[in-house]
Amino acid sequence: MRAVVMRKNKLVVDTVPVPKPGPGEVLVKTIACGICGTDLHALRFAESLAGGSRSAGGIFAIDPNRDIVMGHEFCAEMVDYGPGTRKRLKMGTRVCSTPSLSRASGDEGIGYSAENPGGFGEYMRLTESNLLEVPEEISSEVAALTEPMAVGYHAVSKARLEKRDLPLVIGCGPVGLSIIATLKLKGTGPIVAADLSPRRRELALQMGADVVIDPREKSPYEIFQAAGSTRGAAVIFECVGVPGMIDEIMFSAPRDTRIVVTGLCMERDNMYLLSGLHKEINLQFALGYSGYEFADTFRNIRKGKLRVQPLITGKTGMEGVAKAFEELGSPGHHAKILVEPWRA
Amino acid sequence: MRAVVMRKNKLVVDTVPVPKPGPGEVLVKTIACGICGTDLHALRFAESLAGGSRSAGGIFAIDPNRDIVMGHEFCAEMVDYGPGTRKRLKMGTRVCSTPSLSRASGDEGIGYSAENPGGFGEYMRLTESNLLEVPEEISSEVAALTEPMAVGYHAVSKARLEKRDLPLVIGCGPVGLSIIATLKLKGTGPIVAADLSPRRRELALQMGADVVIDPREKSPYEIFQAAGSTRGAAVIFECVGVPGMIDEIMFSAPRDTRIVVTGLCMERDNMYLLSGLHKEINLQFALGYSGYEFADTFRNIRKGKLRVQPLITGKTGMEGVAKAFEELGSPGHHAKILVEPWRA
Repeated sequence: MRAVVMRKNKLVVDTVPVPKPGPGEVLVKTIACGICGTDLHALRFAESLAGGSRSAGGIFAIDPNRDIVMGHEFCAEMVDYGPGTRKRLKMGTRVCSTPSLSRASGDEGIGYSAENPGGFGEYMRLTESNLLEVPEEISSEVAALTEPMAVGYHAVSKARLEKRDLPLVIGCGPVGLSIIATLKLKGTGPIVAADLSPRRRELALQMGADVVIDPREKSPYEIFQAAGSTRGAAVIFECVGVPGMIDEIMFSAPRDTRIVVTGLCMERDNMYLLSGLHKEINLQFALGYSGYEFADTFRNIRKGKLRVQPLITGKTGMEGVAKAFEELGSPGHHAKILVEPWRA
Repeated sequence: MRAVVMRKNKLVVDTVPVPKPGPGEVLVKTIACGICGTDLHALRFAESLAGGSRSAGGIFAIDPNRDIVMGHEFCAEMVDYGPGTRKRLKMGTRVCSTPSLSRASGDEGIGYSAENPGGFGEYMRLTESNLLEVPEEISSEVAALTEPMAVGYHAVSKARLEKRDLPLVIGCGPVGLSIIATLKLKGTGPIVAADLSPRRRELALQMGADVVIDPREKSPYEIFQAAGSTRGAAVIFECVGVPGMIDEIMFSAPRDTRIVVTGLCMERDNMYLLSGLHKEINLQFALGYSGYEFADTFRNIRKGKLRVQPLITGKTGMEGVAKAFEELGSPGHHAKILVEPWRA
């Protein structure tokens, strides 16, 4: 099959073997697959991402010396059944799934493993019992983005929000935007969002933010003073992931702030812990989601309760993926670019 | 009155004015007052401690250019009533109290302010409504240590412990030891404690630890693997406060660990956030206690439910305080040295 291959920190289109579905697995054809910020990180920092994951028992089984077909935010269609499948879904049915194979030997990641190609290629194998059927009224593009929406959904659940809490989203990339949509779903607000990019602030409004702030013009932390003591706790979602962000937030946030860290900061970070201590700040790191959260996110998308559409800012065939990675590296225009491997 | 005065990062015994109780305040005579690790920090780092507190809205109103009488862990006896007091307690009654004055203009700290001398001097003024009467059967030394015990009590309440959680206390100085006693009170266990010092490990056992570990001989994190998946979350109390500790804990701890940070790390710290992210670690900073927690701690001490006695490893008059600070700087022998200002 044809696929976009990550080979020694470069992306090339090449021919690779079609994956063979194992027991309880199916073969699917990719319809659309989003490019994730983590894919950009993986291309640049394959070694440290894999190392960090290994020491934490994660499933990024990246071997930088082998070809990898990335892509873990996908909608696909049924093409073949593997052995020992229940064959509940007909051929041609559109599906989405968590990007992992549930195997007797343990879960295996899809899209960050040389064994299990992801959605930047024509075909994938998926675990049958993980499949969620995509109904007719939901587009394949929207269904593909269940995955990044589940990341936001999970981050919000990690925040232990109470009704009167004041949420602030710092950084309006895809994760920040999916957090905004989830906060809207939960009815917590007003939702305040900050980003340096005017385009991303516009997307934040489209996803459900009530107030957007350019941090060069106004401190986003002022909202907490303005809200006064009758409100709940400040809950700040860190969705930037560059060194120094947590230090800045701890320095500027009010007492008893809960910070949910979703930004993937690849370098060592540096901070002054006394600010955290004096304010009794809580830092919750959040990554990924559970299978239940993924299904619940999809259910909310199906019911039209979670906004997804504004995230989709571009589409490309396989030949355009390397360029799309470059464009996504700077926050000028895009939120999500979807790869359509069947395009010319 | 005579007092141990902090003057330009030195401790000297000198004569200073007796504080005058304001409305709703009483004058008391110090019977015993513990030396706290924060006092050691204040002597070395007065500027940065005050700066960090100011930016966080704290009450360490230290002006390094003025004389300060430290001491905030005290038991004292009633000597005089100020104006507008209810005079509920007789002269000579022994009392303890949170080290703060509740004033119409806001709370003021005792022992870290040039205005409000602490227990390393002969007399203090206290807010009458904050006083807790010390019953006959409780020694003044034990009553004085209500304050550090409340710090541990508060840290444990910040940990959101559930019955099956596995607690590990890293660092068995006074805060670690008071956390151990509180864990014992709450019935969470087995309580595992780690410290490099044999003396502190011995004190940890006396305060209620079930297992003590020398981290040079055995990794304290092994207990989590050994416990298996049927146990609750790992809850690690960081009571060391040197740079690098949080990084080490995040690297070594299992998934979903909650870390309660009580160590006062005065320098900038450096860490690899990917460990935290991969494991979805929660970091809760904990400092101080509420008035309710202080009273509840005292109630538990009165009822004999919270061990305090092993903490007391030395006593001194005012002339010995500078030397006691030096001795407490290395974790050789002491946990708490109590200052008795009335001693020769």
